[in-house]
Amino acid sequence: MSHLDAPGSMSHLDARGPMSHLDAPGSMSHLDAPTIIRTKRDGGALSDAAIDWVIDAYTHGRVADAQMSALLMAIFLRGMTRPEIARWTAAMVASGERMDFTDLRRDGKPLALVDKHSTGGVGDKVTIPLVPVVMACGGAVPQAAGRGLGHTGGTLDKLESIPGFTPELSKSRIRQQLCDIGAAIFAAGELAPADRKIYALRDVTGTTESLPLIASSIMSKKIAEGAASLVLDCKVGSGAFLKTEEESRELAHTLVELGTGAGLVTRVLLTDMSTPLGRTVGNAVEVTESLEVLAGGGPPDVVELTLALAAEMLDAAGIDGADPAQTLDDGTAMDRFRELVAAQGGDVGALSDGGLPVAYAETITAPRGGTMETIDAMAVGLAVWRLGAGRSVPGERVQSGAGLRIHRRPGEPVSAGEPLFTLYTETPERFEAAIAELDGGFSVGDQAPPERPLIIDRITSGD
Amino acid sequence: MSHLDAPGSMSHLDARGPMSHLDAPGSMSHLDAPTIIRTKRDGGALSDAAIDWVIDAYTHGRVADAQMSALLMAIFLRGMTRPEIARWTAAMVASGERMDFTDLRRDGKPLALVDKHSTGGVGDKVTIPLVPVVMACGGAVPQAAGRGLGHTGGTLDKLESIPGFTPELSKSRIRQQLCDIGAAIFAAGELAPADRKIYALRDVTGTTESLPLIASSIMSKKIAEGAASLVLDCKVGSGAFLKTEEESRELAHTLVELGTGAGLVTRVLLTDMSTPLGRTVGNAVEVTESLEVLAGGGPPDVVELTLALAAEMLDAAGIDGADPAQTLDDGTAMDRFRELVAAQGGDVGALSDGGLPVAYAETITAPRGGTMETIDAMAVGLAVWRLGAGRSVPGERVQSGAGLRIHRRPGEPVSAGEPLFTLYTETPERFEAAIAELDGGFSVGDQAPPERPLIIDRITSGD
Repeated sequence: MSHLDAPGSMSHLDARGPMSHLDAPGSMSHLDAPTIIRTKRDGGALSDAAIDWVIDAYTHGRVADAQMSALLMAIFLRGMTRPEIARWTAAMVASGERMDFTDLRRDGKPLALVDKHSTGGVGDKVTIPLVPVVMACGGAVPQAAGRGLGHTGGTLDKLESIPGFTPELSKSRIRQQLCDIGAAIFAAGELAPADRKIYALRDVTGTTESLPLIASSIMSKKIAEGAASLVLDCKVGSGAFLKTEEESRELAHTLVELGTGAGLVTRVLLTDMSTPLGRTVGNAVEVTESLEVLAGGGPPDVVELTLALAAEMLDAAGIDGADPAQTLDDGTAMDRFRELVAAQGGDVGALSDGGLPVAYAETITAPRGGTMETIDAMAVGLAVWRLGAGRSVPGERVQSGAGLRIHRRPGEPVSAGEPLFTLYTETPERFEAAIAELDGGFSVGDQAPPERPLIIDRITSGD
Repeated sequence: MSHLDAPGSMSHLDARGPMSHLDAPGSMSHLDAPTIIRTKRDGGALSDAAIDWVIDAYTHGRVADAQMSALLMAIFLRGMTRPEIARWTAAMVASGERMDFTDLRRDGKPLALVDKHSTGGVGDKVTIPLVPVVMACGGAVPQAAGRGLGHTGGTLDKLESIPGFTPELSKSRIRQQLCDIGAAIFAAGELAPADRKIYALRDVTGTTESLPLIASSIMSKKIAEGAASLVLDCKVGSGAFLKTEEESRELAHTLVELGTGAGLVTRVLLTDMSTPLGRTVGNAVEVTESLEVLAGGGPPDVVELTLALAAEMLDAAGIDGADPAQTLDDGTAMDRFRELVAAQGGDVGALSDGGLPVAYAETITAPRGGTMETIDAMAVGLAVWRLGAGRSVPGERVQSGAGLRIHRRPGEPVSAGEPLFTLYTETPERFEAAIAELDGGFSVGDQAPPERPLIIDRITSGD
């Protein structure tokens, strides 16, 4: 039985809305919010003019939050066609400035502008080693990065655990950094202001996990940030916002189409997010693990994904002959990371002393010996959120010290009583709820789990 | 192909929302709007506690308009079970005062409190002759009446075309009128304030025509107004808010269950609204036609429905032996109407001079001879709305003089060139749009239309 057809439930989903007759007068002479809402409510496609009007009117306060949220719920439940998503994205880009760095030169040559974005995962610190690798290989990365959302972490929250680091950069400072060192990681600020308003609304109205709304939100910021090419890491599995591989593939194709349509060279890697990436999840702990990768070590999965994304970015940007792996081995990527942190006000000295913020720790030990069979990304993401790494209300301060260390990854042998996870928080009363989230989120048994490829597929505009 | 399955459309309707995992933490410790919205979004039923919380929190401003409108859209598209509708209704009743007139006495006896409500129609002036008929037969009618909505007229708007008439009555004045003359027709005011807020929101967010929201809105006001028994006129056909007979029957059964559950003797007549009632649609024109009925004349369909509803009301109120038809013939109903108008400040003299507000008139004539085959209630309702009888923004003044007269009803013979409709408005620039609405809304041909019963069915709690 589908949820739709619950017995005794009175639903209008099967029928065209009964007031569709009334739609006509409103649409004859002008555009208005109730008519646009009813069109989507009844399963119709929104016209270009309707999308342009409603995004502009909402940005400027002529459409109320209540009307936009009704429309967002109708979009969530009715969906959008690809052309609608493209127009919705373009209208959000047009609500603010689209940055352009094509005039910038380094050593007399145009910059090879390229960026990367992930649809959101658990333990996904890859941006932190990846940007310096691409810098070291000659790319220029203008990255409008995000903060944590729900169970997923955000690059800005992680980098802000470095004392002094700021993502609040003016446009002229972004331009200067791109010329001087080849990267800037900044808060989206004035880019796509329509998206900022809609994003805040989605967060409180249960309309976050919608493919059209996810795709348009990501791409409006990425198109506006001024990269010429873009590599997207589209997550698949329990820790992703969209839960099925089918939905993630559809999202991947949508992202490629949106990017290509906006003139960006766009590639997507479809990657596994059923289990956390690496051995750490949180803020400062993920920076520390990223430094291990930049020092030539670190967990193999984080290294693999970093190098795969770097290869895509360099290819998309038209950079030949660089060797991303070597930049990790020879320390040049680490040098670029230190330059980036310093340029954005961060305390480079704090990177070397290996010190983490003071936090309380609690350990979960193995109930039996055997093999770690599974670690569920969603359970870990929620546990770390409970520990204080993410927000429960907008604008809340996140804890740099909150996080989790995975001592045994899936497939690794376990002895009874030895530590499986260490949990960190600045507020120890949070342990109980975090441990409850982990309950049932991992399993120790006798079976080695099947090998799961980290990189599932690669999708480009030719597909 | 259903609208749901449009190719290329990305919809989440088939699947449980991907963030349902995230619902758990919010609901473990407390109720919150995003969790409640996601539950309904994903097709679940809301708990009693969730409904009570969200209605109370919205009434008192702790849930934002944007959150309620997202929830309303989710209810529109996902529906509600009968128990959910009952709880939602009860929570709206509990948001304000529930009036109680059981202590009132007339001639030493408790009042036979009974009311009637229609789900909304075109040309439906029946309340105006009906209330005096029931008064004349010994019933007492506390009626919280409404204003026009969309293409449908409202009793208050019509009665306010009588100079001086006011529906703004204090509770003590309502009690006094019930004792003194046996009726009061008043604006809902402080009854069910949650409904008032939600109704205003529905009007601008495309969430009006939803069975659960219609049923709970009507019944919350009717339960709060203090009638002991209730007769509902549930419309079927193009001029009704719900378009299919199946939906209207479902609404009828829901209304009976809600009324009975709240302790009211509740009856529903299912009546035809495919063509307008009587020969007039508008404000002052409908009062004039009502006076014709009260004077023993008037269109047969209006008289038939008035007497059928009166018989139900008297039966529901336990009044035996009265003859509603005689009160129209002998003038006693007309006397009661004059008393009611006078008690509420209306100019009784204006009732006798037959004068209508000054308005411009335009006539539509027959393109050919034959028989009037059909007149579509929705087309006429929209035409009259265009003429200024209804509102396009909340609180707008309606025109007393706006309306339409039907010279040839379905089944009546037509000669080429003779008047079919006369349109009235105080603002003649409105004629063009009104005439456009009527275009295609009636047909003159060679076939007499099939006889259509006005009263389709009768539904009580035993059904």
